[in-house]
Formats: sequence, structure tokens, C-alpha cells
Amino acid sequence: MKLNIALLAGDGIGPEVIDQAVKVSNAVAKKFNHEITWTAGLTGAAAIDEVGEPYPDSTHEICMAADAVLFGAIGHPRFDNDPKATVRPEQGLLKMRQKLGLFANVRPTFTFPSLIDNSPLKRERIEGTDLIILRELTGGIYFGERGRKDNGNTAFDTCTYTREEVQRLAKLGFEMAMTRSKRLCCVDKANVLETSRLWRETVQDMEKDYPEVTVSYEFVDAVAMRLVQWPNSYDVMITENLFGDILTDEASVISGSMGLMPSASIGVHTSLFEPIHGSYPQAAGKDIANPLATVLSAAMMFEDAFGLKEEAELIRTVVNKSLAEGIVTEDLSGKNKAYKTSEVGDWLANNI
Amino acid sequence: MKLNIALLAGDGIGPEVIDQAVKVSNAVAKKFNHEITWTAGLTGAAAIDEVGEPYPDSTHEICMAADAVLFGAIGHPRFDNDPKATVRPEQGLLKMRQKLGLFANVRPTFTFPSLIDNSPLKRERIEGTDLIILRELTGGIYFGERGRKDNGNTAFDTCTYTREEVQRLAKLGFEMAMTRSKRLCCVDKANVLETSRLWRETVQDMEKDYPEVTVSYEFVDAVAMRLVQWPNSYDVMITENLFGDILTDEASVISGSMGLMPSASIGVHTSLFEPIHGSYPQAAGKDIANPLATVLSAAMMFEDAFGLKEEAELIRTVVNKSLAEGIVTEDLSGKNKAYKTSEVGDWLANNI
Ligand SMILES: CC(C)[C@H](C(=O)O)[C@@H](O)C(=O)O
Ligand SMILES: CC(C)[C@H](C(=O)O)[C@@H](O)C(=O)O
Repeated sequence: MKLNIALLAGDGIGPEVIDQAVKVSNAVAKKFNHEITWTAGLTGAAAIDEVGEPYPDSTHEICMAADAVLFGAIGHPRFDNDPKATVRPEQGLLKMRQKLGLFANVRPTFTFPSLIDNSPLKRERIEGTDLIILRELTGGIYFGERGRKDNGNTAFDTCTYTREEVQRLAKLGFEMAMTRSKRLCCVDKANVLETSRLWRETVQDMEKDYPEVTVSYEFVDAVAMRLVQWPNSYDVMITENLFGDILTDEASVISGSMGLMPSASIGVHTSLFEPIHGSYPQAAGKDIANPLATVLSAAMMFEDAFGLKEEAELIRTVVNKSLAEGIVTEDLSGKNKAYKTSEVGDWLANNI
Repeated sequence: MKLNIALLAGDGIGPEVIDQAVKVSNAVAKKFNHEITWTAGLTGAAAIDEVGEPYPDSTHEICMAADAVLFGAIGHPRFDNDPKATVRPEQGLLKMRQKLGLFANVRPTFTFPSLIDNSPLKRERIEGTDLIILRELTGGIYFGERGRKDNGNTAFDTCTYTREEVQRLAKLGFEMAMTRSKRLCCVDKANVLETSRLWRETVQDMEKDYPEVTVSYEFVDAVAMRLVQWPNSYDVMITENLFGDILTDEASVISGSMGLMPSASIGVHTSLFEPIHGSYPQAAGKDIANPLATVLSAAMMFEDAFGLKEEAELIRTVVNKSLAEGIVTEDLSGKNKAYKTSEVGDWLANNI
């Protein structure tokens, strides 16, 4: 099979971890006789530095021409404390999501038995956790009208949702629930927000099409609590963009394996796979960052974008083996030897 | 001293827990020679049932005439899954906040050494946690324009902030930081939202007036993570209304003592004190709910609204004694005897 993949390494540790995912993917392709064409594009601070734009048209064209996009991380601290910066790396991310129509961010949170004691939560709270948050990614307050009034002394942001946007995301949620425990949780703030009431009413209307799925409706503040108390009580969750931003990140730390969590963003034009961790600028260039989340994102790509389940499973098996044998970076090595980012990548590729 | 207190019991377990706080407050008043006048007002579902309105004018007048308001909880499940309900108990809460100008919600999260093992977090993660989240309570997306367009198929909510609103809240934050560790964390989403950029820029401008305070700026998604990972790394945090809603609730479960956490809402016209837990309708009328959060809210009231520090300390001492001696409701009793809500209240009052 010919696999045409856009490669956006981005900022900070992005390039290093992407390198390992490429090594592993190439090893898989060799083994299963696929032919991967990688096409690299600039994004984030790196793109701002080179062409003044965090998601240049040239990069967009590369993505549009690809069957899938493998993404590293973007963001640079030099932009963070400057509220007046006019070009920000994150704008590239948002522009990319919008232009590629990446409407659903799929964020699994699961545990690795060998890493469970890294969790800030007690073992009995976290054991068995296996949930997926589906975050709407191209609507809501991220993309509504915003600005200043009154000489800059009043600021506003608008959150907007259409029924179609909710349906599109919720449909994925119902379908995913059907392949799992048949439980779906719709997270909103319907006791306050009109957009949340539209979400709730739209999902309620869809329940009849999925009679086997049991749907619960919970307020975002209550979910922020229960995620810490009983994460394993959740299965598939659907929510709007901003709530999803907060809850997916909250969920990511409970497993104790944040450096290992992959994600997918399902799009109208293509889909994108990326580790959930950020650009971790303090570690950039040091060859110490954990590449496993990116490697597992590549596994998701093989399975979800190309339907290559066996290939994906092989990657996961080899990752588990690396964990079992302690071929891990310093974040996971404890008192044992810490391997370099590139050494972990080499080991994985060799073991494919 | 004459203490003129409005008493809003609300829904669910509200009346039961409020009763205990009244008993304890009366015992304190007797001991210290204060004269409390309690004036009860209707709120929430209870008020909807009686007068068709969750925060009737008669209740507002009671609050305006009072020196402080002691509040139970509101909310009833019969309204939760009905997106088309036109009158909701929570509207009463919002109307009350707005009409009383309760602009700052003060939410401490601390640990009780004897309860630390109730936390879902490991002991070493939670020990020493003592933070305060200051949530802006009368602005933002809670009070902006909202509605439907396009035959009801598009919904919108607007988040608005003015520089004065931010300054008013941030001033409290800086002042509170000055009395504590002199660290202040401003939580926003300035990489996306214009209102957040106004927050950040306003707080940055105020830094020069508090040269001793070290201010950090963090994104709400990062804070949602760090609150679970290292809650004891925070001290005073300031944030806007919706982020505050989510983060204060998240913070409340980490201590393992959610049933004990009090809160204050500081207002233009008066201030209000309430437990952070909800109306817990499943337990209503059973005399099993934990009254300590409401009793500790009364302690906050003595101290913050009336400047009666000794009285507040006495309440806290007696609460600690009840915990040490196991005079607690079923949520805390473990394998030991569970006391009734009213028994705990009686014990506390007798021990004042
Ligand atoms: C960088 C930022 C704009 C982005 C978001 O808020 O969506 C990030 O937090 C994420 O979740 O991918
Ligand atoms: C009931 C609801 C409107 C309210 C809020 O969101 O402010 C509650 O969650 C709270 O935090 O007091």
C-alpha cells in the first residue's frame, strides 16, 4: 500500500520525537511492504521564524495532498507572556484545525499496568481506566467573533454552535460507544449556557437512533470532579471545544502516563495524529524527551487512517515490550538506566 | 454585637445543614454575648414551587437588609434534563449573585490531617495543600448576551469582561497573596481568548503596585493538570467565572474533604457564605448529610463579615474536635458509628 503522510514536526521536542515515529513507521512499512512517502511541512514558532506565519499555505497544501498528517508539538514560551504579540504559534494550530476541518479530537486515556504507580491518584482509583474524550475541535469560543470595545477596556469572545456541528461530533460519539461499553456521557453546562442547551437537546434527539446506547448528561464542573474521583466510571465522553481542552488535559495526568498518550483529530479533508504532550521547550535538543506518545500516535494513524490494524498492533506490542524491558527515557526510568530519545526509537525500530 | 443574618436554606439537604450552622452560630452568639437576628428567605426550587421564582424580590430585600447571608444549596434534578425548562433553580443563584454584586467567590482548599487518606490522590501529592481560588462571579460568559438564531439551530453565548471587573477581582487576589506566601497565579486562556488577554494585561499592569508579589500566568488547561499533580504548588489563584467554576470544583475533590469545604462570596452590597457541596437531593430529608462545610462557612462569616476572629476560631476548634472524636456523619465514619446530621450539630453546639 502507498502511504502518503505529511510530517509536521513543529517546535521544541517535536522534531526529536517525530524522528522516532518515522523510524518506527518506516520499519513497519518495510516489514509489511508498504511504501511511505513523507512530506515535511513547517509549523508553529519554527514556521513563524522562517516565513512569518505559523501555518503557511505551503504546509496546508502538503496536508491536503496527504492521506494523513503526523504532528509533533507546537508552542514557544517566548510568545506566552506577551499578550500583545500579533502572531502566535497556537494560531497555526487553530488555523490548521479549521482549514483541514479537524472537527473531532479523539483523546483516549488508559493505563499501562507497569506505570500505574506513576499516577498521582491511588491505584484503586485509576486501575481499569479506559476512557475516550471526544472534543469538538473547530467550533465554539475558539472560532467565534472576538475583539475589544471601549478603547480596549472591554474584551469579548463569542461561543457559537450549530446543530450540525453538534450532530457531527455526537454521531462519532454514539458510534464509538457502540463499539465499546455502549455508554456515552455528554458534558456541558446546560444550566447556564445556551450553546450547552443546544448540545444537550441535539444529543437527546439522537438517542432514538442508537437505542442500545445509554446516554448520561453531566455538567462540566461535576465531571472535573468525577474524573479525579472515579476516572474508571467513564467510557466515551463528548464535549465542546473549550470544555474538551480542559478535561482532556485533566484526564491526561490521571493515568500517570501522560508522556505516552496519543491522539487523533478526525477531519473532513484528512486526519491528524499527534502526542498529547506539548513542545516541552526546556528539553528541546537534549535527546531526553519520551517519544512513545508520538510512536503510539503513529500506531493510531496506521489503524484509523489506513485501516492497517495488524501494523498498529505490532507497534503497540513493541512499545509494551520496551516498557517491560526498561528501554525508556528518563521520565520513566526511575533509578534504572535512562535511554536517550533516539536510543528508544532505534530499539523500537529494530524490534519491529 | 447585633448580627443581622439572612438565612437561605434552599433545596435538597440545604435546610438540614443550615439548621446545624444556626445551632452552632447561636451557641457562639450566646457565649460571646452577640445578638443574632436570623431572617429566612426562599430560594431555588423551593422558591419556584412557592412563588414561581428562584430568587424572589422578597428574598432579595432580606439579603439587602442583612449584614451577611448564610446559604445552603440549591438545585433539583427535575430541572436538569429538561433543556426547555424556562425557570431553573440555578437562575436564582445567578440573579442573586448579580443583584447582590457578589463579584468574588473565595474558595479555599485545604486538608485535614485526619482525613487526608480520603483523598483520591496519594498522600505525598496532597499533603500541605492550602490554596485559595478567587473566582470572578458576576461577569464573563455567565452574564453575557446569549440566544438562538436560524430557527433555533444556532446557539451563542458571549463572554465579556471589562478592565474594572478584572482589576476588582485581581486587587483582592494581590491583597490576599500579601497576607500569605506572596505568590499569585493568574489562570487564563490568553493563547486563544481576547477576554483572557485583557485579564493578563490588566494583571500585568497591576504588578507594579504589589512589588512583593510574584505573579505567574498559566493556561487553564495546564492548571487543570497541575492541580491534580501538585496541588500544594499553588497558593492564591485568580480566574474568570467559567474557569473558576471548573477549577474550584476540581480542587474541591483533591483534599478528600469536599464535604467540609466552606466558601465566601464577597459582594458590593453584602457577602454570602455557603458550603461548596451541592443540594445532594438523594440524601435530602434523611438527616445523613455532613453539616461541617456549612458550619465552617458560618465560621468564615463570623471572621470575614463581622471581624469576629475568636468566634470563628472557636467554631473551627470544635469542628476539629468532632473529627478527632469521630462525631461525624456516615460519609466520614468509615467502620465506626455514623452520627446523624442533627446529632453532629447538637454535639458541636454543646461543645461551644
Ligand atoms: C495551544 C492551544 C491553542 C491548544 C488548544 O487550546 O486547543 C492546546 O491547548 C490543545 O489542547 O491542543
Ligand atoms: C449551579 C451553577 C449555575 C453554579 C455555577 O456554575 O456557578 C454552580 O456550579 C456553582 O459553582 O456555584
